[in-house]
Amino acid sequence: MAKDYSSKEYFAKLDAYWRAANYISVGQLYLKDNPLLRRTLESSDVKAKPIGHWGTIAGQNFIYAHLNRVINKYDLNMLYIEGPGHGGQVMVSNSYLDGSYTEIYPEITEDEEGMKKLFKRFSFPGGVASHAAPETPGSIHEGGELGYSLSHATGAILDNPDLIAAAVVGDGEAETGPLATSWQSNKFINPIHDGAVLPILDLNGFKISNPTILSRESNETLTKYFEGLGWHPIIVEGEDPEKLHPELARAMDEAIEEIKAIQKHARETGDDSLPTWPMIIFRAPKGWTGPKEWDGKPIEGSFRAHQIPIPVDQNDMEHADKLVAWLKSYRPEELFDESGKLKPEFAEIAPKGDKRMAANPHTNPGNLIRDLILPDFREFALENAEHGKTVAQDMTVLGKYLERVIELNAKNRNFRIFGPDETMSNRLAPIFDETKRQWMQDIKEPNDEFLAHSGRVIDSQLSEHQDEGFLEGYVLTGRHGFFASYEAFLRVVDSMLTQHFKWLRKAKGQPWRSEIPSLNVVSTSTVFQQDHNGYTHQDPGILGHLADKKPEFIREYLPADANTLLAVFDKVLNDREKINLIVSSKHPRPQFYTAAEAKELVDKGLKIIDWASTDHNAEPDVVIAACGTEPNLESLAAVSILHEKLPDLKIRFINIVDLLKLRSPKHDPRGLSDEEFDAFFTKDKPILFAFHGYEGLVRDLFFDRHNHNVMIHGYRENGDITTPFDMRVLNQMDRFDLVKDVVLNLPDADKYGQIAAEMDSIIAKHNQYIRDEGADLPEVENWTWKPLE
Amino acid sequence: MAKDYSSKEYFAKLDAYWRAANYISVGQLYLKDNPLLRRTLESSDVKAKPIGHWGTIAGQNFIYAHLNRVINKYDLNMLYIEGPGHGGQVMVSNSYLDGSYTEIYPEITEDEEGMKKLFKRFSFPGGVASHAAPETPGSIHEGGELGYSLSHATGAILDNPDLIAAAVVGDGEAETGPLATSWQSNKFINPIHDGAVLPILDLNGFKISNPTILSRESNETLTKYFEGLGWHPIIVEGEDPEKLHPELARAMDEAIEEIKAIQKHARETGDDSLPTWPMIIFRAPKGWTGPKEWDGKPIEGSFRAHQIPIPVDQNDMEHADKLVAWLKSYRPEELFDESGKLKPEFAEIAPKGDKRMAANPHTNPGNLIRDLILPDFREFALENAEHGKTVAQDMTVLGKYLERVIELNAKNRNFRIFGPDETMSNRLAPIFDETKRQWMQDIKEPNDEFLAHSGRVIDSQLSEHQDEGFLEGYVLTGRHGFFASYEAFLRVVDSMLTQHFKWLRKAKGQPWRSEIPSLNVVSTSTVFQQDHNGYTHQDPGILGHLADKKPEFIREYLPADANTLLAVFDKVLNDREKINLIVSSKHPRPQFYTAAEAKELVDKGLKIIDWASTDHNAEPDVVIAACGTEPNLESLAAVSILHEKLPDLKIRFINIVDLLKLRSPKHDPRGLSDEEFDAFFTKDKPILFAFHGYEGLVRDLFFDRHNHNVMIHGYRENGDITTPFDMRVLNQMDRFDLVKDVVLNLPDADKYGQIAAEMDSIIAKHNQYIRDEGADLPEVENWTWKPLE
Repeated sequence: MAKDYSSKEYFAKLDAYWRAANYISVGQLYLKDNPLLRRTLESSDVKAKPIGHWGTIAGQNFIYAHLNRVINKYDLNMLYIEGPGHGGQVMVSNSYLDGSYTEIYPEITEDEEGMKKLFKRFSFPGGVASHAAPETPGSIHEGGELGYSLSHATGAILDNPDLIAAAVVGDGEAETGPLATSWQSNKFINPIHDGAVLPILDLNGFKISNPTILSRESNETLTKYFEGLGWHPIIVEGEDPEKLHPELARAMDEAIEEIKAIQKHARETGDDSLPTWPMIIFRAPKGWTGPKEWDGKPIEGSFRAHQIPIPVDQNDMEHADKLVAWLKSYRPEELFDESGKLKPEFAEIAPKGDKRMAANPHTNPGNLIRDLILPDFREFALENAEHGKTVAQDMTVLGKYLERVIELNAKNRNFRIFGPDETMSNRLAPIFDETKRQWMQDIKEPNDEFLAHSGRVIDSQLSEHQDEGFLEGYVLTGRHGFFASYEAFLRVVDSMLTQHFKWLRKAKGQPWRSEIPSLNVVSTSTVFQQDHNGYTHQDPGILGHLADKKPEFIREYLPADANTLLAVFDKVLNDREKINLIVSSKHPRPQFYTAAEAKELVDKGLKIIDWASTDHNAEPDVVIAACGTEPNLESLAAVSILHEKLPDLKIRFINIVDLLKLRSPKHDPRGLSDEEFDAFFTKDKPILFAFHGYEGLVRDLFFDRHNHNVMIHGYRENGDITTPFDMRVLNQMDRFDLVKDVVLNLPDADKYGQIAAEMDSIIAKHNQYIRDEGADLPEVENWTWKPLE
Repeated sequence: MAKDYSSKEYFAKLDAYWRAANYISVGQLYLKDNPLLRRTLESSDVKAKPIGHWGTIAGQNFIYAHLNRVINKYDLNMLYIEGPGHGGQVMVSNSYLDGSYTEIYPEITEDEEGMKKLFKRFSFPGGVASHAAPETPGSIHEGGELGYSLSHATGAILDNPDLIAAAVVGDGEAETGPLATSWQSNKFINPIHDGAVLPILDLNGFKISNPTILSRESNETLTKYFEGLGWHPIIVEGEDPEKLHPELARAMDEAIEEIKAIQKHARETGDDSLPTWPMIIFRAPKGWTGPKEWDGKPIEGSFRAHQIPIPVDQNDMEHADKLVAWLKSYRPEELFDESGKLKPEFAEIAPKGDKRMAANPHTNPGNLIRDLILPDFREFALENAEHGKTVAQDMTVLGKYLERVIELNAKNRNFRIFGPDETMSNRLAPIFDETKRQWMQDIKEPNDEFLAHSGRVIDSQLSEHQDEGFLEGYVLTGRHGFFASYEAFLRVVDSMLTQHFKWLRKAKGQPWRSEIPSLNVVSTSTVFQQDHNGYTHQDPGILGHLADKKPEFIREYLPADANTLLAVFDKVLNDREKINLIVSSKHPRPQFYTAAEAKELVDKGLKIIDWASTDHNAEPDVVIAACGTEPNLESLAAVSILHEKLPDLKIRFINIVDLLKLRSPKHDPRGLSDEEFDAFFTKDKPILFAFHGYEGLVRDLFFDRHNHNVMIHGYRENGDITTPFDMRVLNQMDRFDLVKDVVLNLPDADKYGQIAAEMDSIIAKHNQYIRDEGADLPEVENWTWKPLE
């Protein structure tokens, strides 16, 4: 006989399971010993400083218990995203109850002793975080910074057709911008090839110290809002668990059956038109089941339930009786057996094995990761035997390579590209010979282009938050991809990148966590290529932002041409555990490096370019180093000019691709040793360093090195709507300014006043010409790179 | 007789005005001469590289013309926010037509010659930007980075009860997170004391190369969505101007009359409950009135209309006839008189004087700014005669000062505080003795606290984007305030801060633009004070982010105690033209500096603290410098320990408040000269530099100085949920690690191995104790700052 998942008896067990989760969650806040209160509570049983959050716990535990119910009832493959960051106990408690916690942390046994250790380590120095952090089984979402639960959930279920991501959205989180726009994620989920997101809006009414906007809306208004966003909202509300169990169960059944019906219809008929997915709105009080009031003020149903509601600690036991009463209200004696283990009749509420949300394989995807099948990048490389002769667009060359990557991995469905309506602008057009942009709303050709209900590109929402969130969810569940953005607007997701880095760093400390594919971010339409959009679109500061973080997890590649860009992609696409920032050119630009040079540049990070050097491996008079496309282009032109003017000058030209290799090993074990560094840059010869980004980062990189005799030419925050070449002139990054700075810093600088004056006069001529004609002075082209004689 | 604003004749004139705006907008894209096509178009009349955007233009010009109509009809005080960034011609064209452009730029005369210059300068090197930039009359919103139009509009109308901000929201912009959540701004607008925002959603259907999500929704779905957000949407759609003129006019009348009725009701009855404000949804094709197709593909009504729809330039005149036909379709000969000026019968469509949106005084608020009335900060200062004895919370002391600031300026209604639900957490509680949080939804005490329909604090939406956007709108219209945030989550608005800086920088170049009050950002709940929330809440990188920008506009203050914080506020509250970052402590901390010392610290930026130095103004053996609260606290403790262990050691202690004063004058004219710098830091003595942020910034600051003998102790990205003191230990910022680093870097370091070992042993003891007990080793307190003997 099939089990009755809606009987009184079942709900009684479910309620007991919920109480057990609540008990364990409160215990984690306060206790470090005497976990089952089997003796009188002593001051030494209580933590010195209880820290953590209570407000969200009981509501989430209720939802979690009911998700367990539908997993069992419908045999679901489901994971849990804990949007409300504050309340890490939820996932810890439930994972402990279903046994998965003990499987991962065997010292946390399923008995009184284990429970004691579990309580103590929570939110405790050296213990586990108060959010659903990397150390929490089943989590792929931290929730420390709010706003990304739905985009993470969406990323996780793309190309996982059987997976459901149950995403609990806090009503505080729902007020953030990223979350507010992420309700539109339903416009990108294909019901045949992707799984489903089940959002559960947890309307407990309050944030830290304010009510929440959505909780103060009527059900009618909420229904309109979510229907307006294309969802079918199912509302459950109340505070009496006895009434709420059958109601939430009905709502969950309805939601799951709707999801299954949508998928069945689409998969059986091939009709993958945009469905109306269900969502659940759950209203129950903040601090539910906890203390009703304190000091004459309400706790339950108030913002005051947010953190620690009752002031009890090791040094203040005055109100310990209240804490004990609260804990005993869950009737632990009914829930746990003599040893302290959850009784079997309640333990059966939890799913088994991989069906447990805390053990869902997608949340720790080591065994699911399939490497990308990559073509030889050399097949797509330009010849460049004659350095600088070919003109091509790096991103378009990359597009052809990516087209092949997409083709090779089509069957595995484990590679995606994300962007905020910029894939075409960023010149990746060739990929659309192989795939389309996934978009579930109406498609109206010929006014639309390259859209389909299924495709490897998702770029039809103008939101960097969504792209970054989707990609994070995608790689956290073991797949590969990248997010390409206008350079300046990568800064919109500065903080998301920080949080992903923090996740990687903490996950690394968990031996049971598998490595995950790197998060690749392509920064293009850069500061020196923003002629259409001007000053607002000019900011290369992402380089400094990421360079602040722990070096182990960060790479910054600045390929100067198409071949180098291909070699970078060849390196990063199957990479693990990093954030790779790739700064790439999209404009037509002269191409310089052969595939072999490109490979060496990427493998070693930098290279002395012999065909652009005149030092013949001897000590040079000047080192010219370039990092980035325009710096490389202008520096090479400067080398030519200098060689023409001063044929005896011994110039060493270095191209740098992997910027952070320059860091001192004092700060980054991967950095060049001082000996290696000096072998490139000398100990004291003048260095001209042409750099794509802000100059402070280069000063930082050189600080611990011998040679401080460096003239840095970076982005000097002189922006405008003008030609790309004029942008370089405005920032003294052009060939003429570079030549001038070199000659004026040679030991015998006073001999070269005339060269400097000549450079000045060309710049002046250019400045006049461009303001008259709106175009670059044509004779600039006479001063381009020429092979050295 | 009252004018009939809905007659056929009126609409015919309105249509002519609109055509004139369209004509001028297209002319700006392509032409640099022959603006009225009064002779055959020659190649030399056309720009070398037409750059700019077409898609949004005609729709926005239509809206602008109709806003002119209601301004005249209802005598409104209205400004225009151009959300769709791309299409700067809209505001330029309309400002030119209403004469305000010529008033500001007299060389752009209202005749053929002026029109020619206007055309040429648009989106031209050295000319005007292609967005509604600071050089655009009437703009307070750039639109280069999308998402902030409604929050800017809301900030502008707070405390301006007669002002209406007409905010055009692009359907691309509407997909961003910040914009999606900014529809909730209506929950914070008081109908008595604030003005109104009139959102106009411009649904032209496409972004750069994709359709837009909202445009593909039915009117029914859109109505639900916006009703769900608390607005009354009024939908107008079509593409036949003759039909649309009366329809949009009716919709505008309805919207304005609703706004007036809401305000009248509230102001006459005192009933300021949350109203349902109107908004307009306007559907007309992207690229409306432009080329229908090109190369067999649709342009109008397609993404292809986004930028330059017809390929004509100076060097490619093949299709010049198409451009001419397009321009002539607006029938310029009917619109402009012989001289090239808009004919008077059409010019009367524009409002006059300050009523012109391009001349609205709030958009250039010099004459409207009233300085804040400030109390003497010394009245609120702690005594601190005995340095380090008093323990207080800096933010709470500041709160008392702010309470008085609020009281003194209550009548002027020109000071506001913004925050994402963190005002209490950030310990500004004293202000709630004087004011409340402004919140228009239901207020349910006692579960709620400190809420009212009107108040000086807006902090009840969990969105840093909203806070920053509100504050920007508020200061751009000449008022004062600050935004206080958890330090880590200031990074959520990195890019907004960048864009505000860019605005300041470009506005500075416009002599007609008045200075505006500085944007003050308080970074609190910092990396070293995040015991509740752990690693995700720990990121001091905002310091490096802002330090990248042009120094003229950026200040970074790190007051080490309450008095210094007060002195910083005394300096910044009436400041102009800057972004002031103030990093502040909220925890109970020993207080060190007298009010006089605090004032000197802030005025000079840094100071040798004689009572914490043992060098007696002679050359020291070691310099200990501290920047930030915990660095100051730990450094002073280290000074005490060192003095006890090595009474003859000549220590110089420096506290630094205005961090960027350390910059070399090579990069920042405000920076200390090398002589001044050496006078503080010596040329070669060891420096211990304890710093609140990432260490790379200090390496950058010291790079151009003589003394590179610096041991930097900053945030080393070692975070956890632990005690604030343990956070310092994790990052080697604690007193013991500081002492160790000093003695091991003295010339005779080998003599001090025992001191180092003693320090190590205390740290080891602490590490064990905290992992056992969850609290700091009590004996740490024995090693605190003690007055030097």
